[in-house]
Amino acid sequence: MTSVQLNALGPMSQLSQLEVDRLNFTNNRELHTLFRNCCLAVLNSGAEIDDFKQMFEPYQDFEVNLIRRERGVKIELINPPQLAFVDGQLIQGVHEHLFAVLRDLIYMGVKLESHELDFTDSSHVTHAVFDMLRNARALASQNEPNMVVCWGGHSIGDIEYKYTKEVGYQLGLRGQNICTGCGPGAMKGPMKGATIGHAKQRITTGRYLGLTEPSIIAAEPPNPIVDELVIMPDIEKRLEAFVRMAHAIVIFPGGVGTSEELLYLLGIMLHEKNQQQVLPIVLTGPKESAGYFEAIDNFVAKTLGPEAQSLYRIIVDDPVEVARYIKAQQNEVKEFRKNIGDSYHFNWALRIEPEFQQPFAPNHANMAALDLHFDQPKASLAAALRRAFSGIVAGNVKAEGVAEIERHGPFKLNGDKTLMAMMDDLLVSFVAQDRMKIPGGEPYVPCYQVVS
Amino acid sequence: MTSVQLNALGPMSQLSQLEVDRLNFTNNRELHTLFRNCCLAVLNSGAEIDDFKQMFEPYQDFEVNLIRRERGVKIELINPPQLAFVDGQLIQGVHEHLFAVLRDLIYMGVKLESHELDFTDSSHVTHAVFDMLRNARALASQNEPNMVVCWGGHSIGDIEYKYTKEVGYQLGLRGQNICTGCGPGAMKGPMKGATIGHAKQRITTGRYLGLTEPSIIAAEPPNPIVDELVIMPDIEKRLEAFVRMAHAIVIFPGGVGTSEELLYLLGIMLHEKNQQQVLPIVLTGPKESAGYFEAIDNFVAKTLGPEAQSLYRIIVDDPVEVARYIKAQQNEVKEFRKNIGDSYHFNWALRIEPEFQQPFAPNHANMAALDLHFDQPKASLAAALRRAFSGIVAGNVKAEGVAEIERHGPFKLNGDKTLMAMMDDLLVSFVAQDRMKIPGGEPYVPCYQVVS
Amino acid sequence: MTSVQLNALGPMSQLSQLEVDRLNFTNNRELHTLFRNCCLAVLNSGAEIDDFKQMFEPYQDFEVNLIRRERGVKIELINPPQLAFVDGQLIQGVHEHLFAVLRDLIYMGVKLESHELDFTDSSHVTHAVFDMLRNARALASQNEPNMVVCWGGHSIGDIEYKYTKEVGYQLGLRGQNICTGCGPGAMKGPMKGATIGHAKQRITTGRYLGLTEPSIIAAEPPNPIVDELVIMPDIEKRLEAFVRMAHAIVIFPGGVGTSEELLYLLGIMLHEKNQQQVLPIVLTGPKESAGYFEAIDNFVAKTLGPEAQSLYRIIVDDPVEVARYIKAQQNEVKEFRKNIGDSYHFNWALRIEPEFQQPFAPNHANMAALDLHFDQPKASLAAALRRAFSGIVAGNVKAEGVAEIERHGPFKLNGDKTLMAMMDDLLVSFVAQDRMKIPGGEPYVPCYQVVS
Amino acid sequence: MTSVQLNALGPMSQLSQLEVDRLNFTNNRELHTLFRNCCLAVLNSGAEIDDFKQMFEPYQDFEVNLIRRERGVKIELINPPQLAFVDGQLIQGVHEHLFAVLRDLIYMGVKLESHELDFTDSSHVTHAVFDMLRNARALASQNEPNMVVCWGGHSIGDIEYKYTKEVGYQLGLRGQNICTGCGPGAMKGPMKGATIGHAKQRITTGRYLGLTEPSIIAAEPPNPIVDELVIMPDIEKRLEAFVRMAHAIVIFPGGVGTSEELLYLLGIMLHEKNQQQVLPIVLTGPKESAGYFEAIDNFVAKTLGPEAQSLYRIIVDDPVEVARYIKAQQNEVKEFRKNIGDSYHFNWALRIEPEFQQPFAPNHANMAALDLHFDQPKASLAAALRRAFSGIVAGNVKAEGVAEIERHGPFKLNGDKTLMAMMDDLLVSFVAQDRMKIPGGEPYVPCYQVVS
Repeated sequence: MTSVQLNALGPMSQLSQLEVDRLNFTNNRELHTLFRNCCLAVLNSGAEIDDFKQMFEPYQDFEVNLIRRERGVKIELINPPQLAFVDGQLIQGVHEHLFAVLRDLIYMGVKLESHELDFTDSSHVTHAVFDMLRNARALASQNEPNMVVCWGGHSIGDIEYKYTKEVGYQLGLRGQNICTGCGPGAMKGPMKGATIGHAKQRITTGRYLGLTEPSIIAAEPPNPIVDELVIMPDIEKRLEAFVRMAHAIVIFPGGVGTSEELLYLLGIMLHEKNQQQVLPIVLTGPKESAGYFEAIDNFVAKTLGPEAQSLYRIIVDDPVEVARYIKAQQNEVKEFRKNIGDSYHFNWALRIEPEFQQPFAPNHANMAALDLHFDQPKASLAAALRRAFSGIVAGNVKAEGVAEIERHGPFKLNGDKTLMAMMDDLLVSFVAQDRMKIPGGEPYVPCYQVVS
Repeated sequence: MTSVQLNALGPMSQLSQLEVDRLNFTNNRELHTLFRNCCLAVLNSGAEIDDFKQMFEPYQDFEVNLIRRERGVKIELINPPQLAFVDGQLIQGVHEHLFAVLRDLIYMGVKLESHELDFTDSSHVTHAVFDMLRNARALASQNEPNMVVCWGGHSIGDIEYKYTKEVGYQLGLRGQNICTGCGPGAMKGPMKGATIGHAKQRITTGRYLGLTEPSIIAAEPPNPIVDELVIMPDIEKRLEAFVRMAHAIVIFPGGVGTSEELLYLLGIMLHEKNQQQVLPIVLTGPKESAGYFEAIDNFVAKTLGPEAQSLYRIIVDDPVEVARYIKAQQNEVKEFRKNIGDSYHFNWALRIEPEFQQPFAPNHANMAALDLHFDQPKASLAAALRRAFSGIVAGNVKAEGVAEIERHGPFKLNGDKTLMAMMDDLLVSFVAQDRMKIPGGEPYVPCYQVVS
Repeated sequence: MTSVQLNALGPMSQLSQLEVDRLNFTNNRELHTLFRNCCLAVLNSGAEIDDFKQMFEPYQDFEVNLIRRERGVKIELINPPQLAFVDGQLIQGVHEHLFAVLRDLIYMGVKLESHELDFTDSSHVTHAVFDMLRNARALASQNEPNMVVCWGGHSIGDIEYKYTKEVGYQLGLRGQNICTGCGPGAMKGPMKGATIGHAKQRITTGRYLGLTEPSIIAAEPPNPIVDELVIMPDIEKRLEAFVRMAHAIVIFPGGVGTSEELLYLLGIMLHEKNQQQVLPIVLTGPKESAGYFEAIDNFVAKTLGPEAQSLYRIIVDDPVEVARYIKAQQNEVKEFRKNIGDSYHFNWALRIEPEFQQPFAPNHANMAALDLHFDQPKASLAAALRRAFSGIVAGNVKAEGVAEIERHGPFKLNGDKTLMAMMDDLLVSFVAQDRMKIPGGEPYVPCYQVVS
Repeated sequence: MTSVQLNALGPMSQLSQLEVDRLNFTNNRELHTLFRNCCLAVLNSGAEIDDFKQMFEPYQDFEVNLIRRERGVKIELINPPQLAFVDGQLIQGVHEHLFAVLRDLIYMGVKLESHELDFTDSSHVTHAVFDMLRNARALASQNEPNMVVCWGGHSIGDIEYKYTKEVGYQLGLRGQNICTGCGPGAMKGPMKGATIGHAKQRITTGRYLGLTEPSIIAAEPPNPIVDELVIMPDIEKRLEAFVRMAHAIVIFPGGVGTSEELLYLLGIMLHEKNQQQVLPIVLTGPKESAGYFEAIDNFVAKTLGPEAQSLYRIIVDDPVEVARYIKAQQNEVKEFRKNIGDSYHFNWALRIEPEFQQPFAPNHANMAALDLHFDQPKASLAAALRRAFSGIVAGNVKAEGVAEIERHGPFKLNGDKTLMAMMDDLLVSFVAQDRMKIPGGEPYVPCYQVVS
């Protein structure tokens, strides 16, 4: 048995004894397991596997403990994966990420609970999102508004991957920073490209921020470029963190997860209080992926209408134009924030309704209960569709969701027939394009049925 | 009417809207007045007056407001003293201090309340002290253990003042930082001297930390050297902050306040759990002040005995020796902390009993109730004497205490006759040495009577 | 016609008017052309072409001027390649490299001339090498001795390229910096790998130093990772810079150029005054390249003997071991330098004889005059072989050498028959392994004939 | 005998062996003595004595050597003054100053000689001045144009000293840096005041630049605030360095030396090529010194006329106005430099005629030969008067000049009777005001006679 003790880093290196005492999770088996698994994912950071079962398999005897001393807390790793070590020394970036897990999962968990926040109150949810980011020192107030959030699939093909790198490169050349979901594929490419762009411009303060959440981190451990890691408590707070931090959003080809993100974004931006918001949104990919965006745009046109379409720009096969457009909008973003007295680094003014904030548990009952009909406000329809896609992501790649499907069979979705057909078409096209195949070899078996 | 709006700095520049909402004190008249007065004191930082009445007199139309915007909070000053401005621009250091007041008095006030801390629980008190210092970014974990706390009178004579400067200079030459009560006199001299010592050694990261509390800041506004200001909630937490941050303590000649500090320190260090603590304590002054230390040492010998005397070293007229001794002990301080696993920058292991932590309200009843007899443990006697002196300080210089005296006449102290005589002798000697005169001209009138 | 004026950077931003006046090269047509071509190469930095003709072809109307103003000098570009610009703004790294060209080619050229150095005096040559590096701020005295010089081919295959990246990654993980000849292939791979290693270890001060010389820069423009560029006056001073800066040397598979570098290095290290030198030398490549090193090792064995073989370690297919070995030797390098009182960042004690310092002009007469026989000291033989290979490199890729060959046919080499056969075998094996093919398609035609 | 060896700092830490060899001065007795004395002055930095004889007396067995090692050069001190040491360790600032002496006196001496400069050529003199400052890293190109040169007496009274501190404080509050002649009195006060101003504004990059020359440094060792020291080769290059670096010049009350500086400045500014120059010049002192400025102004009026008077502003007893005026002019200084393409940090465009650049040897022949008549251009008259005052300074405080006087009696000055009378009046008034007394007690005996 090997054991390694790690000194605390960052905010975790200055805890009071009262706080250290409260970090104790020995009686909370579920939290302990979650913490262990997140640590294991971080220790596998950079591994080229993204099937969590396969990744975790060899480390069944891995364990993680907290050690309390007067000066603070240490993390003890038992039988950790050797790939995180160099000549017996833990890689610094992994060391930092482990304490990010402790910070976000345990410390902030305790803090948010003890603050008597009421998570049915929208302003309390937003406070929690802000507090997580602030505590992680992710709100860099001295920077220009240059955080570009990039969304897209984690298992894209080579041509698309190279394209995301090229976009990242062009953004980096223009001094933009990158925030993604922190896994591989379209979450890694833009970061990798940006490092070269930053290096050429001699920018040594480039940021590569990974935003994740506990149920996804195992399937998508942080790629090696991520140098800031924040683990938000759930999908909805992660999405809120993305949009409130973003000064621009780029959407690359992806699968259901990416669709979920787009619908979430459109649902919010359609809100009448957000009409004045300045937030460039670009859908982009190589010319080989033009069809993908046509399908998406078509789906949006038919479900949310032209107003929703007007919120984004589709740019095919032109990384320079993507970066130029975003850079050109940067001043307007700044001006808008200044005029309304908002922060440059956290978009307080953006209105997010509770239906986009409340966690959606992807179980059979909730999936069946979704209201998937046309005759409702566009924003509500976007919210319902977002949840449907969210459930499908869970059924595909998240441990819990996969288990649900194994136990009860596919989710049953019902709603307006035309709508359901459109949705099914879209999903079928994803399958056809291999966007929903779990790497590891086996063909994709849908986790849902449209019953209407 | 002139009005100036100030952008938030430091931790106050990143508040959530929920936090901003909670800063509201419009319904709390007392808090508002306290905040206003602390701001006014800070705006008079560096003024050569330390009679708070005289200082505040010209600024009766001064007011301070909080302004809430989406991006955070601003401080608005109405009719501020012009001495804090340069060509219409507020001096940066004063700007920072104003937000330190907001941070400590209002923000941390709200935070400590909302955390459901139980201030009868010693560990909760210590947590609060730590949290105040951490939030003020005063716990610089990357530094060597080199924080020298200097105590002493605010109205000392020229010879003593020059001596404190010389000690500060010698400490600065040896890379030590300075923490004081942040007013003039012995609180300013060591800082001023250290700046020259640091400059000669090309140390650009020297720290000049002022620890104060709301009732004293008005009488002792931060001197111009203070570049970090922390306003602890009350005397006892301020004293705890001093001793937990200190890597060495230097005590210069002073009046009752300094005696209070020494008795507090001895009372704690006498605790059997603190026997192993490594904390160099030096009483020092120019040869002209040798008598002062004889009197003090004599008082300690007769009240707390030789064990207490062994806790400190008296060094007369030798600044080099003071600095050398402290520097020489620095490694042992570090070793001790390392061996017991304690933090280098906050002395968690130091045991402080509740009698030293609970706030003592200096009113006639409490003063009369003090148990000033020999037949009790030394630490308890030290605690009681500390409180007696604390009450006298309040009666001398603090707004509230002075008002009490004006209303009800001098405090009545009673206890063992010998003890009371010794205490009276000491106080009389302070008066004789002009250590208890309030600058401003009038002779000192004692605020207490020994009755039994 | 487009024209861009660039403000001076680095040491070039603080010139006296006297110095600016001396930069004038309008009367020196050759120097002007050299300067123009080096600038053009730098402007093509990162282009994936390394046939200089092909690269320069489209830019026949490119011109570069110096503009003198009272505050100093500006570079004016006429019709520069657009790939060096982002939205009309020159990329910062290219901007810096252009002033590196001005600094090294023009400013230092003038300086070295005006200093009345005598380049037949070995200590003057070494002074010039040092002065070039110091003036370029390439001697970072605050760093650990961690500069790993990597040599190897610019046109290696994919497997070898990936291997060089992996070695760079493992070196980067261990805090080592990289210095190469600054072109593509084995000069780019280790740098690229190291960026990831540094990023994972959160090292933000990683160095990627490219050392080149005027006749090679056009064929091998700095790759995009190079963030420090130094253009040494000639091959020999470049080689001397490499070995005096190196704390370790890694040799990857390459062609004749790499052989030249190895022979240079062995020739020097064989000197009896260099017996005590601590300088780890590693020959390494993937298992697919094992044959390459066998051939080289065999050649060394037969020409320079076992003593020369003992100077290096061959490590096949084990990047971790390469990096571990170098890291493990780092302390010994430091100790050795300390013991003999030498600098950590410039190996003054290394003896380099004039035969390794004097420039070798690769013309037919000089090539024919080389003494390629066994019966001479090993170091002299190494020197002669080094020159032979140097001439072949020139005949292959350098503008001047290529012109010579076009004019007079292949170089004629003569010497001991066995030796010449061994040399020919080695060169034939390089051709067979495609290590001597100029990218661009055509098969390799040897630029030499073994005649005797 | 105690001996201390010091590692090289700054530019001296990266020398080639060729350069180290050239530093050898063992055969140059005069240079060795000069070097020794400058080192001794620096080691006495901060001593409150400014009679060089008195200061050097106790250190007759002090010696300084250079030690050559492969890595560079060390300074060895034999029997150094103990006041420069803290617990056996040399004070860092003194350590830096010692290598500044080596750099400027020896290294730059060799460099300027070896460059074949022709010091009768004005542009070569200016190059030398620039090269000295650049090599000392005193030309901080990233700063705003905020270098305020302060001139004034080294032995001023308390009131004047406090006034110079207050002006420095007000300049510091406005972000200005200070450059002085680096001794006590008016050379120390502004620096000391500025440290407090900078501290209050949280400016941690404040500069306190001392410019001196070998013959004056012994009499005026750098005060403890000086953190950059440059020793120019002679008076004239020091004066040129002052005016080319200055963004504003403040002249406090002083003696003959200050008059010399003012006449130098006016002589230059009167040049028709300097008519457009933007350089605020302020003569200022407390109200008690109003008479001093009246006398000076009167002298200027009668000798150089109203045009010269229009070049400066006299501000009596108003430090705030001095600082405000200078700050207000700062943008115009910047604009002017920008418009004519001049550097922000070295005033290349300022025309300085040879008569102000050529060193003036203060011996009896040269003094007697001065052309002190009205009928010449104002600038020439200023130059002649400047030299007369320069000679008197030498006769007063410089070792060499004092020796001359001891040997040959007072200098004889002759010229126009009215002019000579005016000059004499001025000098008599200095004596009356105690501005020409050498501290140490004895009354001032004039070192000149007006013979007419």
